[in-house]
Amino acid sequence: MYKATITIRLKTSVLDPQGNAVKGSLHSLGYGEVRDVRIGKTMEVWLDTPDAGEAEGRVEAMCRELLANPVIEEYEFRLEKGA
Amino acid sequence: MYKATITIRLKTSVLDPQGNAVKGSLHSLGYGEVRDVRIGKTMEVWLDTPDAGEAEGRVEAMCRELLANPVIEEYEFRLEKGA
Repeated sequence: MYKATITIRLKTSVLDPQGNAVKGSLHSLGYGEVRDVRIGKTMEVWLDTPDAGEAEGRVEAMCRELLANPVIEEYEFRLEKGA
Repeated sequence: MYKATITIRLKTSVLDPQGNAVKGSLHSLGYGEVRDVRIGKTMEVWLDTPDAGEAEGRVEAMCRELLANPVIEEYEFRLEKGA
């Protein structure tokens, strides 16, 4: 069993209206020192796979095929055994 | 300047319908080894603050006050200087 922790972010060239809205809310609440906010997703995926190399290849394929949108997003992940 | 990378997850006791939907999609695509999927948020916040201790306190307060819902979510963050 492996656990993959995947982080998916908007590419830096892509506008983040949700992040801008949160920045505006933080300013309204008195957090004027906030310069920028970017919002992404984190996914934890548990895989019933015995081999680390296979797990890595499968998670890479899942990210490309379903979890991330490669046009506007970038992703990275780390694997932990037995988590 | 400090950058805070905040990870917000649903508490383990809270159902995650979005994660279950993604798990179902992965199974349909042939990733039958996927046992569970949990989906959370990641936020990158850049703060114009000179002091690490102050930055930590401010990010903690932002999480409690706006960014996370303490009833159903838990959060953690790390700070990097000058990022």
